Amino acid sequence: MKRIAIDMDEVIADFNPKMLAAFNHRFSENLHLSDLQGFTIQQLRPALKEQIEEMIGEPDFFSDLALIKDSQKVIRKLSERYEIFITTAAMEFPGSFNAKFLWLKKHFSFVSSMNIVFCGNKGILHADYLIDDNARHFIKFSGEGILYTAPHNVHLVGYRRVENWQEVAKIFLS
Amino acid sequence: MKRIAIDMDEVIADFNPKMLAAFNHRFSENLHLSDLQGFTIQQLRPALKEQIEEMIGEPDFFSDLALIKDSQKVIRKLSERYEIFITTAAMEFPGSFNAKFLWLKKHFSFVSSMNIVFCGNKGILHADYLIDDNARHFIKFSGEGILYTAPHNVHLVGYRRVENWQEVAKIFLS
Repeated sequence: MKRIAIDMDEVIADFNPKMLAAFNHRFSENLHLSDLQGFTIQQLRPALKEQIEEMIGEPDFFSDLALIKDSQKVIRKLSERYEIFITTAAMEFPGSFNAKFLWLKKHFSFVSSMNIVFCGNKGILHADYLIDDNARHFIKFSGEGILYTAPHNVHLVGYRRVENWQEVAKIFLS
Repeated sequence: MKRIAIDMDEVIADFNPKMLAAFNHRFSENLHLSDLQGFTIQQLRPALKEQIEEMIGEPDFFSDLALIKDSQKVIRKLSERYEIFITTAAMEFPGSFNAKFLWLKKHFSFVSSMNIVFCGNKGILHADYLIDDNARHFIKFSGEGILYTAPHNVHLVGYRRVENWQEVAKIFLS
C-alpha cells in the first residue's frame, strides 16, 4: 500500500482567511487574499514578522480554521487505497500542538491518531508522496513532492502541482 | 551523513522513577522498579490501565523527568557525526505535547526544534537507525532498530540491544 503524507495548513486547513482577519483586526490593516499572491504575510510585512508569528503561535489560533474544500471527502476515499499520514510542521509554533491535534480529531477522525505527525524538517518522513504547499519540504524528502497551490507559491515552478482536492483525486483515485 | 532517530521516554527521559512515585502515591501501592521486569505498569495492573494512562496523560507529567545517564553527553557527540532526530510517540498522550517539547528544549537545546518529531506509528520515519525501548516500532521501521534496555523489554530477543548510552557510544563513535 503506497503511503501519502499530507500537510495541514493551506492544504486541508484554510489558514489564510483566519490569519488575514486576525491580522487586519490586530494591526488595523485591510489586506486581502489577493495581496498574498507570491508572498507569505511575513514577507509582505517584514517589520511585523515577530508579532505575526506571536499571533499565529497563540494556543487557540488553529482551533477554528475552516476546512479546505473537498479535502475531507477526498482524503476519506484516499484512505481506502493508501496509507494516509497527516504531517504538519508544528514545531515552528509549539503553542499550537493541542489545537492542531483537536482540529484533526474533529475533522479527520477517520485518520488514526497514530498517523498524525508533528515535525519540523519533513526530510524525516518515509512516504511515497508528500502533498504540501511549502516546496522547501520537498528538498530533503525522499518521495515525490506534490505542490498544493497556495497564494504564496503561485509563481513557483519545478514540481507537480495541484490546484484543489479534485485534482488530487484525479491523480490518485482515477 | 547517517541519520539516527532517538526515542524519548525510557531512552533519554527517565520515565519509570517518576511514574512509580506518582503511581504509588495515587493508588497507595509500593511497587519498585524490580516489579516492572518484563512488564509495563499497565500490564502489571490491568484493572487500573485507564486511570494510569489518565495520570500519565496529565499536562505536566513529563515536565520534570530526570535525564537517563549519559544520554545528553553521548547525543551531543553523536550530533557532530550524525543527523539526530528525537522521535517520540506523543500521540498516545496528546496532553503531553508541550511538556515534552519544553523538556527537550531544556535538556537537548543542541538538537534543533526542526528535528523533533511527535508521532504515533514510527514506520513513517526515514532514518538509518532507531534507538527505542519499544520493539513494536521496529516492525514497520525501514532502518535498523536498536533496542534500548528498559524493565519492560528485558526478556525480548531478536534485536541489537544496548544497555546504556556508553554502549550506544561504542557502536556509533568508536
